[in-house]
Amino acid sequence: MKKMDPDKAGHKCGVVGIISSNNVAPELYASLRIMQHRGQNSAGIAVSSSEETIKAVRGLGLAHEVFNAENLSSLSSHSGIGHVRYPTTGDDMIENVQPLVLRSAVGDVALGHNGDIVNSGALRDRLENLGWAFFSTTDTELVLRLIVNELRDMNDPVRAIRNALKLVEGGYAFTLMIGSRVFGIRDPLGIRPLALGKIPGGYAVASESVVFDMLDGQLVRDFYPGEIIELTSEGYMSYPSPLSPEKSERASCMFEYVYFARPDSVIDGKSVFEVRRNIGRVLAREHPVEADVVIPVPDSGRTHAIGYCEVSGIPLSEGLMKNRFIERTFIMPEQGARENTVSLKLNPLRSVISGKRVVIIDDSIVRGTTMRKIVQMVRKAGATEVHVRIGCPMIVAPCYYGVDMKTRDQFIATGKTEEEVAREITADSLGYLSINGLVEALGMKSSELCLGCLTAEYPTRIPGERMRFQRSLESFQEMRSASPQIMRK
Amino acid sequence: MKKMDPDKAGHKCGVVGIISSNNVAPELYASLRIMQHRGQNSAGIAVSSSEETIKAVRGLGLAHEVFNAENLSSLSSHSGIGHVRYPTTGDDMIENVQPLVLRSAVGDVALGHNGDIVNSGALRDRLENLGWAFFSTTDTELVLRLIVNELRDMNDPVRAIRNALKLVEGGYAFTLMIGSRVFGIRDPLGIRPLALGKIPGGYAVASESVVFDMLDGQLVRDFYPGEIIELTSEGYMSYPSPLSPEKSERASCMFEYVYFARPDSVIDGKSVFEVRRNIGRVLAREHPVEADVVIPVPDSGRTHAIGYCEVSGIPLSEGLMKNRFIERTFIMPEQGARENTVSLKLNPLRSVISGKRVVIIDDSIVRGTTMRKIVQMVRKAGATEVHVRIGCPMIVAPCYYGVDMKTRDQFIATGKTEEEVAREITADSLGYLSINGLVEALGMKSSELCLGCLTAEYPTRIPGERMRFQRSLESFQEMRSASPQIMRK
Amino acid sequence: MKKMDPDKAGHKCGVVGIISSNNVAPELYASLRIMQHRGQNSAGIAVSSSEETIKAVRGLGLAHEVFNAENLSSLSSHSGIGHVRYPTTGDDMIENVQPLVLRSAVGDVALGHNGDIVNSGALRDRLENLGWAFFSTTDTELVLRLIVNELRDMNDPVRAIRNALKLVEGGYAFTLMIGSRVFGIRDPLGIRPLALGKIPGGYAVASESVVFDMLDGQLVRDFYPGEIIELTSEGYMSYPSPLSPEKSERASCMFEYVYFARPDSVIDGKSVFEVRRNIGRVLAREHPVEADVVIPVPDSGRTHAIGYCEVSGIPLSEGLMKNRFIERTFIMPEQGARENTVSLKLNPLRSVISGKRVVIIDDSIVRGTTMRKIVQMVRKAGATEVHVRIGCPMIVAPCYYGVDMKTRDQFIATGKTEEEVAREITADSLGYLSINGLVEALGMKSSELCLGCLTAEYPTRIPGERMRFQRSLESFQEMRSASPQIMRK
Amino acid sequence: MKKMDPDKAGHKCGVVGIISSNNVAPELYASLRIMQHRGQNSAGIAVSSSEETIKAVRGLGLAHEVFNAENLSSLSSHSGIGHVRYPTTGDDMIENVQPLVLRSAVGDVALGHNGDIVNSGALRDRLENLGWAFFSTTDTELVLRLIVNELRDMNDPVRAIRNALKLVEGGYAFTLMIGSRVFGIRDPLGIRPLALGKIPGGYAVASESVVFDMLDGQLVRDFYPGEIIELTSEGYMSYPSPLSPEKSERASCMFEYVYFARPDSVIDGKSVFEVRRNIGRVLAREHPVEADVVIPVPDSGRTHAIGYCEVSGIPLSEGLMKNRFIERTFIMPEQGARENTVSLKLNPLRSVISGKRVVIIDDSIVRGTTMRKIVQMVRKAGATEVHVRIGCPMIVAPCYYGVDMKTRDQFIATGKTEEEVAREITADSLGYLSINGLVEALGMKSSELCLGCLTAEYPTRIPGERMRFQRSLESFQEMRSASPQIMRK
Repeated sequence: MKKMDPDKAGHKCGVVGIISSNNVAPELYASLRIMQHRGQNSAGIAVSSSEETIKAVRGLGLAHEVFNAENLSSLSSHSGIGHVRYPTTGDDMIENVQPLVLRSAVGDVALGHNGDIVNSGALRDRLENLGWAFFSTTDTELVLRLIVNELRDMNDPVRAIRNALKLVEGGYAFTLMIGSRVFGIRDPLGIRPLALGKIPGGYAVASESVVFDMLDGQLVRDFYPGEIIELTSEGYMSYPSPLSPEKSERASCMFEYVYFARPDSVIDGKSVFEVRRNIGRVLAREHPVEADVVIPVPDSGRTHAIGYCEVSGIPLSEGLMKNRFIERTFIMPEQGARENTVSLKLNPLRSVISGKRVVIIDDSIVRGTTMRKIVQMVRKAGATEVHVRIGCPMIVAPCYYGVDMKTRDQFIATGKTEEEVAREITADSLGYLSINGLVEALGMKSSELCLGCLTAEYPTRIPGERMRFQRSLESFQEMRSASPQIMRK
Repeated sequence: MKKMDPDKAGHKCGVVGIISSNNVAPELYASLRIMQHRGQNSAGIAVSSSEETIKAVRGLGLAHEVFNAENLSSLSSHSGIGHVRYPTTGDDMIENVQPLVLRSAVGDVALGHNGDIVNSGALRDRLENLGWAFFSTTDTELVLRLIVNELRDMNDPVRAIRNALKLVEGGYAFTLMIGSRVFGIRDPLGIRPLALGKIPGGYAVASESVVFDMLDGQLVRDFYPGEIIELTSEGYMSYPSPLSPEKSERASCMFEYVYFARPDSVIDGKSVFEVRRNIGRVLAREHPVEADVVIPVPDSGRTHAIGYCEVSGIPLSEGLMKNRFIERTFIMPEQGARENTVSLKLNPLRSVISGKRVVIIDDSIVRGTTMRKIVQMVRKAGATEVHVRIGCPMIVAPCYYGVDMKTRDQFIATGKTEEEVAREITADSLGYLSINGLVEALGMKSSELCLGCLTAEYPTRIPGERMRFQRSLESFQEMRSASPQIMRK
Repeated sequence: MKKMDPDKAGHKCGVVGIISSNNVAPELYASLRIMQHRGQNSAGIAVSSSEETIKAVRGLGLAHEVFNAENLSSLSSHSGIGHVRYPTTGDDMIENVQPLVLRSAVGDVALGHNGDIVNSGALRDRLENLGWAFFSTTDTELVLRLIVNELRDMNDPVRAIRNALKLVEGGYAFTLMIGSRVFGIRDPLGIRPLALGKIPGGYAVASESVVFDMLDGQLVRDFYPGEIIELTSEGYMSYPSPLSPEKSERASCMFEYVYFARPDSVIDGKSVFEVRRNIGRVLAREHPVEADVVIPVPDSGRTHAIGYCEVSGIPLSEGLMKNRFIERTFIMPEQGARENTVSLKLNPLRSVISGKRVVIIDDSIVRGTTMRKIVQMVRKAGATEVHVRIGCPMIVAPCYYGVDMKTRDQFIATGKTEEEVAREITADSLGYLSINGLVEALGMKSSELCLGCLTAEYPTRIPGERMRFQRSLESFQEMRSASPQIMRK
Repeated sequence: MKKMDPDKAGHKCGVVGIISSNNVAPELYASLRIMQHRGQNSAGIAVSSSEETIKAVRGLGLAHEVFNAENLSSLSSHSGIGHVRYPTTGDDMIENVQPLVLRSAVGDVALGHNGDIVNSGALRDRLENLGWAFFSTTDTELVLRLIVNELRDMNDPVRAIRNALKLVEGGYAFTLMIGSRVFGIRDPLGIRPLALGKIPGGYAVASESVVFDMLDGQLVRDFYPGEIIELTSEGYMSYPSPLSPEKSERASCMFEYVYFARPDSVIDGKSVFEVRRNIGRVLAREHPVEADVVIPVPDSGRTHAIGYCEVSGIPLSEGLMKNRFIERTFIMPEQGARENTVSLKLNPLRSVISGKRVVIIDDSIVRGTTMRKIVQMVRKAGATEVHVRIGCPMIVAPCYYGVDMKTRDQFIATGKTEEEVAREITADSLGYLSINGLVEALGMKSSELCLGCLTAEYPTRIPGERMRFQRSLESFQEMRSASPQIMRK
């Protein structure tokens, strides 16, 4: 039997939910395009078609491939949620495209998810042994069925949501519709981001604050860890976590700042752009070098490079030209296809590089294969020295909360020194940002961050991994004293 | 909330299941094409991909539009089930295309359904109030979830099936897969047909016996009412209804013989072709007429006409030419589109009709609009008299067991005499087969038949309708003494 | 370079042209559906979008697959032509789908073609050597460019058409649009059929008269050999062949009557249905047999069988059940696919056949493989004797005028006696209609018919074949004294 | 009749041709992706399938939407040409997608075109009056038919090409296939770019040199004005213009450097990147300003901005964030859709802009509507002053040679002063590059450039426009003494 693969859940997705006195379909569609960088594999919108019914359009591909004037017209409504999903290899079944919609006694219920439920495999096994059955392989369906199961005999949806979520562990941001009502839900440690915004005509929740800017609205605030918010067109109701804010642990994902989020977003009070510029500055202090020109890897290293140049005084130049039409998969019918891909995406500018000592700046290194090709490309274009500076510490451990890095052997840095990695990517020198440098650039306490992929210590229980600190475990256990009634079904 | 519409369930469908030492995918596909007359709206095949997992391909359209060499290759397996579904207005969601597949603790489970669950609306309400949730609007999902719920703590699937089916009433034929195991299930009164066959390499169940003929196999026997059969490649295991055969009521749907099944099928021991020829003969005795030529409405009236000519001695001729490419919907961008449809499908042959007294033979009349146009078409082609003879008694009441006739006001015959109907269709005379004539032609006892649409007396409890006889009710109640454990979920 | 394959030209197609005070798009679409039996490979409609411009929608597939409410709406017009094309193996390029449209000095010009230009290969070579270039591989483009070339300095389109057609030989029926004007053109010997009809609001030309019936109009008359007719909404202008009708040879294709046309069409004054019934009667006299039942091969042999039964007195029965959904190609992913096809299309009725001496009636035998399978199928169903009667003489020679029979070695009858063919198809006896019997059944003189595929004598010059009679050659030469000006381009 | 619209011809396209001992299909496909910025409307590849035949795959959309592993495999060959076309409104008929292929006496001939034939309308009228007919509305078909017409009785293809091109005027770069032979052709003034390159296994021509870099090859040299080059896998044959190089006028399009070409291309010996950086430097000297930050409009203004910062000393920052997934059309089902588009593509970074005096740099202004929105966006984000600097002089006149700027009233600058334009775009100041500054930055003589859109003086005869200098006209007339034989057809 095909079990849910925990790798294929809600990873690196974008969620949005809107209630408005205007038609929400165009706003939801625009939101998905604005957050397209969070997921290019599939897109979906679900809207209320009456107080109790929900209508959805979902498909594989980019938002503009899934939606058109005709199907957006059919989604005209005053409340709805949307979802984009990151490309993962395989399992791109249409059944898994979100938001998922179920029909229940209290009306249709829909759920969109960004994140990862750590215990979904075990939980699903347990439920299936109780007679439950699933049509998709997502942990989103798991959570949705848990919520619907609790909705059956109560009209307090927040209590139902809390009861259901007592069973699940992980990092998540949900947008949930029950009939025409819209809720946002953030995980108890605030691992995955979720923001509340005011837009013309109503209120919205979204993975990134840039959505509110571009809908001519503004960020109200980020969700507190564990908070549930229900939107109305005139305001919102907050249901904070039962744990008092003082007791609450935090574990914001550092990778959202370093790489994943748009630079024009603000997450948990920090501008992503400013964090990246700060990182560049810290990097210049931690890893100075004598060089003639700083060249960012477009587009990801550009902001870091500006900070690096400010501090180092080395002039910035464009030097790697990007083909902006090669965002997506590039299938070649010949051998050696993947080799070609980098050189089709990037082209070095000989006049800028030739005879120069070059500093290449990028945001992070995971596998290292792309950076190796870039170094060689720059050297072939005539660079006399190639120095690489990376705006993220060494990634050495998997992410269990929704970023697509799953096994230790995929990381170039695992078990290596900086010098060894430098040799592997054929650079003259290599400088990674330090963990302390990252914390400084972020301006947060390390205890407020999830640094699991850097430290191999995680903010929640993961079988076989170390936990970050004991207090978190206690508060989790307290929170998770599930009423026996939950499992009755 | 969108409740399941009892009109849109498993109506007029075809089911098939095969276990074989050969690859079953081509056989399942061929079976769907052979039973395409039972459903042109969608087609699907589910096969076992391991002992516990099931793989499915499903889509809207005819079988040859859904399947191709590539996706059939991906379905290579030794056990599988298939389904075709009748066109119904609206609600053609891809979620509803069968076989439906769910993932459960004991492995994947798939179900295909021909028929109608009479109490599905009430049952679904009850389950939703217990926290269940559905992704489709079919009663097939309802039955499938009931079965999976029972499968959780037992490895006797037949007992699980029986327990689940204690909750449902209606006419149904199911093909069920649990992992790689294949089951056929017929309703307790045998309303919907289901047959067991031997084919090269294995065994099969199908809605019609013609499937076995065309796969170079043969009919073994029809399912007994209430019987469950599990197939193996070397044989089959029968699980008869707990009610002894003598006590068992029967209620074979007369409309399968009159109209729905292929003439080359044999259902419950009766050749459909011979039944139709008999009907023609009885009709000639019941409604003789002086005329020059007998013209069948192609293709449905052709067999009845041969019987009519045998007894009446009036010569048979083709006289209405059919456009064999206009089987499917005909969309015209102008007003009056539906008016045109009949005249695009049928064209009268003036040389055969002109100056003649014509007998038109068809299998049945439901709404009467098509027959009215045919009569006028024949008269316009020069017929001096037009007499209509119909191989089915007056249809006056809805079907609740899977034939797409739902409301009394859609029938031309409701509340009218034969003469009144004749006037409405502008025929010089009109003769319907009598109910006694039908029973005679079938060669069965009336107590073995479901004649609900003719008599408005039904073999099961239908709220607001009369029940055929009390004994059935008693046996139902006995059979349906559900264990309290069933409802625990 | 890819030369035009003379096998792939305008074979077995259907053409239609309409001018009307109503919108012609729905009528053209309906006409294509009515003539769908003449071509299932592609469909196209071209209409005038102004006095000089033409708009077209064309595609591969059946008419209802190519057209929809939206694209038909875009074709709203008062004059237009349509085309369906027969499936041929390979070369199904979209460039070849008709009507073809070219832009010329006098406006857009469009052409649809049913037939075959015998000398197209040689003619095309000659023109290419003069600097002409072609974008498609059809002989339709050849004829269209010849016409456009002549249209350049004259406003007498009929003279331009005649000049262009002096260069081509063969059997053809064209519908031609020049701007908003519509013409029909039939070849000089009337090999291919073309009929003129009156419909509500205007006038039409079509390959078969059934089109006019079903558009609520009527046949006015068939085109004379060599005639050009221009339609208007109030009438039509006839431009007869310059040869006087008395001198004119005729060569109507006998295969249209025997097999290709719909039975409800009338071609050159003869009802196709009556011809087929007559054939059945003649066949019964020419090849009597002691038997119990006559079974037609559906649907093609049904009319012939009625005639056979009338004379022989043997009762008729349906005995081979046809799957009406298997009209089109049947792809199976396994070996032996083609073997299966016949048995999926036809199923014998054991109750009708078993223990009987059976006469099978079909319209014609080309390759013989299907009939062999039918004989074996009937024998396996229990027939004690199987006698085959064929409503067409032995086909022994290719057709060069538009029927898809091209090489002698594809015919089962070439060089064999009736007895030898009988053995090959495993029949107890086999009777072909005689050529004299065919002529009698048609009620025409043999000199008015093209019997090339039966006699290997053709009505036009074909390199390597015998010509039917000398007079035809003379009249051709007279007609074809082309002005030298023609070739100047 | 639909005449060819001179606006819809070969505008802003990319062409490529390759002969190689390797399979050229993957290289052609990669080339189209590399030049995707030159045309996003359609893509096509034509390859030789034998010495005389050509096979093509063409479609609407981006290259990766038109091509896949399957159809690229079908294009395996050792010689071929490719084409991408710019989006133009309307007339996106599949018939117009290039390369166009015609079948001629000497074999198949294919043509791809970047540019514009100024006299195509008049020429087409003349040819149609001689009996020619066209299936597409492109000037590419016009040129292709002229070439084929000349190819008929000669085996010197270069003479045929020259004879055909004597009839056409304009700016053009062609890739031409005759059977398996591949030619590149540049217009007599070198208006449109075309480059020759060596790649592994063979030789190539392409609109931009970046293609050779990314195929691991290198630029050999640009085509001379009027030059024809035939490729072989071992080398190339040059057929220079009959005018000696000294006499030859030049008129390189300045807009290729300013905006259209990729920065990593080298055109006529000048690096596009260096030209743009120079432009930024000149602009800083011509239009200095007191400001706090320089922000480029991404991606087009980035290189100009680096030059501006070098000279001005004002710090550079990213300040407008671009949504890299919104490259293509953005359809919104609501009013005000176009208003939204800019704000969905660009988002200002408040932390960079707020309280600052900002210089916005972009490459050019055509209509001015986008820049007006950017200024307002930046001001709303808190800029105290907004100064705009543009790396191209005022565009005031149409382009007739292949850039999509056609009518004077579309330009914001026509008839206005810099101050008036500044007011219209609501900027505090606006500085355009001067024409002299552009010439300086390019490092070429103004007599070597086409500056028509800046000066309204054109290098060829355009009815109603001034010609740049008389000598050009004379040399054109000399070159264009067409043999009378040309027009005979």
